Amino acid sequence: MKVRLLGVGMGPQHVTAEVAHALRSCDYVVASRKAHDDELFAIRQAICDEHGVELVAVTDPVRDREPVDYPATVSAWHDARAAAYAEVIGARRGTAAFLVWGDPSLYDSTIRVVDRVAASLEAEWDVLPGVSTPSVLAARHRIVLHEVGHPVHITSARRLPEALVAGQTNIVVMLGNADDLATLDSLGDWWIWWGANLGTVAEELVSGRVADVLPELQDARARAKQSAGWVMDAYLLRGPR
Amino acid sequence: MKVRLLGVGMGPQHVTAEVAHALRSCDYVVASRKAHDDELFAIRQAICDEHGVELVAVTDPVRDREPVDYPATVSAWHDARAAAYAEVIGARRGTAAFLVWGDPSLYDSTIRVVDRVAASLEAEWDVLPGVSTPSVLAARHRIVLHEVGHPVHITSARRLPEALVAGQTNIVVMLGNADDLATLDSLGDWWIWWGANLGTVAEELVSGRVADVLPELQDARARAKQSAGWVMDAYLLRGPR
Repeated sequence: MKVRLLGVGMGPQHVTAEVAHALRSCDYVVASRKAHDDELFAIRQAICDEHGVELVAVTDPVRDREPVDYPATVSAWHDARAAAYAEVIGARRGTAAFLVWGDPSLYDSTIRVVDRVAASLEAEWDVLPGVSTPSVLAARHRIVLHEVGHPVHITSARRLPEALVAGQTNIVVMLGNADDLATLDSLGDWWIWWGANLGTVAEELVSGRVADVLPELQDARARAKQSAGWVMDAYLLRGPR
Repeated sequence: MKVRLLGVGMGPQHVTAEVAHALRSCDYVVASRKAHDDELFAIRQAICDEHGVELVAVTDPVRDREPVDYPATVSAWHDARAAAYAEVIGARRGTAAFLVWGDPSLYDSTIRVVDRVAASLEAEWDVLPGVSTPSVLAARHRIVLHEVGHPVHITSARRLPEALVAGQTNIVVMLGNADDLATLDSLGDWWIWWGANLGTVAEELVSGRVADVLPELQDARARAKQSAGWVMDAYLLRGPR
């Protein structure tokens, strides 16, 4: 048994030559499916259809979205997911692949889950990288993520306030949600390069001085959500000199 | 006239479907060539051959590698590069492409240079993302670049000491050079996931507690340099809890 974890960026357009080759050599792709409308599942289906691989849907365990103990809740959820996948792969055997939205190394749990799956099945596993969300965001805005020679701090929307307190002034924020907008409100003089639902038909982009573009950004966010039924945003924030 | 900036990751294996499509639709690829052995030029040649596009070599302006005023020197060098490219593209016209090693948004000057080229020629330009070095590093080591929910700080080897002073404990270091090893020497209890010449035949990987693996890492670095004639390394450093 072998498990391959394949980064696919924002969809079929970002499938690399080595991921396409891996897809042709695997026996099936495993993907979780949500109970309701699941566009990320539909994107995986499109990739599998394009490369002639069977897609096996696994029902996603229920996840507590407002946990009291965040790391413990996440870990329990990873266990539940791993058990569901191990059951399918253990029964089918052969080479299974997982398609990871964006790149597996940033704010994605598939590596942690597959590590458990592979251990329980004593299967080999490997990872192929994909195009990450910050790279797509930067490409759309035609920017480098940092000033010459300077660092980039990548964090989640949840931890943005901590990064600001620590004095970071060049921050990529991922896993955005509507609550961030309150934080942005206090950063009027900063610059933002923002994107929602990157790489999909509902993509929205806004950039400029935060105080100037915040209303436009809120409208664009609502439009993305209206159009897709969901919204996933990411942005670069850069402080004034 | 149009200029397209295409991220190609570590080589032909990381060319995405949209970059392959862009390559077929452009008239030629422009690439700088160093006076001596230039493996990155050879990788670009391989990509152009595979996709049936002409590669036009432009001699790279000489760069001061030990500048007194770093930003000013970099800016002057970008100007010199932009002028050399604008001359070629202005004469040939059509759609030109640049192939960017890794992703154009991280520690790469092509966006800054093409911005100037496009302005001087009044040409349209766009950017397609590629697989970045941190993504490849993480994939090779089968790791996520951060602990659950935590941030990632990406910086250059030159600025690693600043990141350490600022209390960062999860740092991706790019543009490594032999001098970093002195900094690593003081981080014996940290963990490192290190790679050199990623995605090439001279690739080397080392991971473990810094104090335990530093000699092995130095040997691997020497081996990569011996094998390829050059060494480019990147690594994740994580502090003890």
